[in-house]
Amino acid sequence: MFRCEAYAAPAADKPLGPLTIERRDPTPEDVVIDILYCGVCHSDLHMARNEWHFTTYPVVVGHEIVGRVSQVGSDVTKFKVGDLVGVGCMVDSCRTCPNCREGLEQYCDVGNIQTYGGIEPQTGKPTAGGYSKSITVYEGFVLKVSEKLDLAATAPLLCAGITTWSPLRHWRVGPGMKVGIVGLGGLGHMGVKFARALGAHVVLFTTSPSKVEDGKRLGAHEVVISKNEAEMTAHAQSFDFILDCVSADHDINAYLNLLKRDATLCLVGAPENPQAIAAFPLLMKRRRFAGSGIGGIAETQEMLDFCAEHGITSDVEVIDIKDINTAYERMLKQDVRYRFTIDMSTLGEPAL
Amino acid sequence: MFRCEAYAAPAADKPLGPLTIERRDPTPEDVVIDILYCGVCHSDLHMARNEWHFTTYPVVVGHEIVGRVSQVGSDVTKFKVGDLVGVGCMVDSCRTCPNCREGLEQYCDVGNIQTYGGIEPQTGKPTAGGYSKSITVYEGFVLKVSEKLDLAATAPLLCAGITTWSPLRHWRVGPGMKVGIVGLGGLGHMGVKFARALGAHVVLFTTSPSKVEDGKRLGAHEVVISKNEAEMTAHAQSFDFILDCVSADHDINAYLNLLKRDATLCLVGAPENPQAIAAFPLLMKRRRFAGSGIGGIAETQEMLDFCAEHGITSDVEVIDIKDINTAYERMLKQDVRYRFTIDMSTLGEPAL
Repeated sequence: MFRCEAYAAPAADKPLGPLTIERRDPTPEDVVIDILYCGVCHSDLHMARNEWHFTTYPVVVGHEIVGRVSQVGSDVTKFKVGDLVGVGCMVDSCRTCPNCREGLEQYCDVGNIQTYGGIEPQTGKPTAGGYSKSITVYEGFVLKVSEKLDLAATAPLLCAGITTWSPLRHWRVGPGMKVGIVGLGGLGHMGVKFARALGAHVVLFTTSPSKVEDGKRLGAHEVVISKNEAEMTAHAQSFDFILDCVSADHDINAYLNLLKRDATLCLVGAPENPQAIAAFPLLMKRRRFAGSGIGGIAETQEMLDFCAEHGITSDVEVIDIKDINTAYERMLKQDVRYRFTIDMSTLGEPAL
Repeated sequence: MFRCEAYAAPAADKPLGPLTIERRDPTPEDVVIDILYCGVCHSDLHMARNEWHFTTYPVVVGHEIVGRVSQVGSDVTKFKVGDLVGVGCMVDSCRTCPNCREGLEQYCDVGNIQTYGGIEPQTGKPTAGGYSKSITVYEGFVLKVSEKLDLAATAPLLCAGITTWSPLRHWRVGPGMKVGIVGLGGLGHMGVKFARALGAHVVLFTTSPSKVEDGKRLGAHEVVISKNEAEMTAHAQSFDFILDCVSADHDINAYLNLLKRDATLCLVGAPENPQAIAAFPLLMKRRRFAGSGIGGIAETQEMLDFCAEHGITSDVEVIDIKDINTAYERMLKQDVRYRFTIDMSTLGEPAL
């Protein structure tokens, strides 16, 4: 084991603060990464505050990690010291179930090992996330990051990016398709960028008139204020696919009615409460209401490569680690366009 | 026009009783049918009692019609006098929109013409359904019925049959698949028979221990009492497809959790209230919650032909037309196994 500076939540009702943790020494198939940036996901806040009721404290969150390889195990073949790499929401899985074999580790039958909130199979100890100076990860869950990309703005691709990329690819979004993105936040702004880059006609739905210009700047061909019934009705039965990025309660039926026959609305936001879904919008046009969670490792690499090729990153506000508690409060007020990312050089000394 | 004996609801709160109505004389592309049997669908009751709030009175309901051709228009090519035929929930559609051209008239962009509760394009008058001695229908919406089939038991195929057949075919149910059918009523009992005949491993879910034996007799390999949590849990993540035939409020999330990754639960029941759908059962395995409504004309013919080949019909209780009001009360108590069908010879005299 080696000592590593981190920033941890000591309890559900306490602010995050510095903590020295231990990281495992690399096994032959592990990579050790010096973390340069870590994006701030709403899940971080849920876990830090025990809103999912399974947090063990102290907890180090963060699963949008970008860094440089500082050490490799003897059997590592994909990476060498100095490589720019990323780590997302998972650090391992069973590696053998049908889903893992298909490269869909996010749907591992046994349950993948989350970057935080999981149990490290190598040590039996709780996993600790990216609000730290370094991390040791099995090379199979480490992604290559292009030197072309702005690193601070790349970190959020590891969760917000892949969470929107995966369903857009799974439902084959591309030229000739009309695609809706619901909600312009951390997920939604990536959804707009990706759907546009994939060649679709992109319509952003937002409740905020103040986001219309931003929506267009980010790539939306049209922006609809979802509270405006006439605007909504004008788009009835016209969408090939809708990606719903909203985590709050909202009227999903209004969007189901905008789908063509046999088309899908896919939820990637995770509202805490069940949502009321009416039968008729589904029955009348054989529509589908689906969900999708993050993405597989191969698909995450595909997305990062696509981003490097097309110059796509998140819109970020870079913060010092000491400002993370304030950032959480601002995130709750949706006062961020569109993702915070922590400059990890602001956290103590490099790992010893 | 010609006079035709029928049985009609005079008002939402009045019992059905005899009424003489007018039917249109056949246009060159119409078929006139002497009605022999008409199945009793829960929709009949909804419409008769104005539970959908758009009934115009008096109303003649019934959309599970079997009869014999008594007259054909000069351009009719598919049928001749004496042919055994069926009519289901639709009697026409726009015939030109993309859905109609694909043979999916049930999803007609303009809206198909319902057998009752619609407006006849030929006359501009309300359509009148199968609780009557005869009906005039555009030949494109008339189905051929095999002489091999028991006619009383064939009538419900025109709605309950096609409503379950269409999604089972659309989602390609067949050998090697594990398929769930939720609810054993008019729809569910056809779902069980079809899924079994299509070669799937069939699991029936029911709340009624009294229906276990019947479920097996109808073709289910297994019957699960859905209130039994342990039984439900034993089937977690194992279904390729689930057909949900329940029209009452129920916990759909419990069934979503039984689906494999990427699998679909399709609702064909139409609960009046929106149902509470949780995000996680969808997100965790990229599952789909879909709906399906009746089926197209070509697909209905395919089903009737399949039924003739495999000897499949509904389980029916044949009633006299004078007992229809009692039958409605029994239907509300689920006191029917599994469909009432009216012997139309019990209604007055043949059409004049």
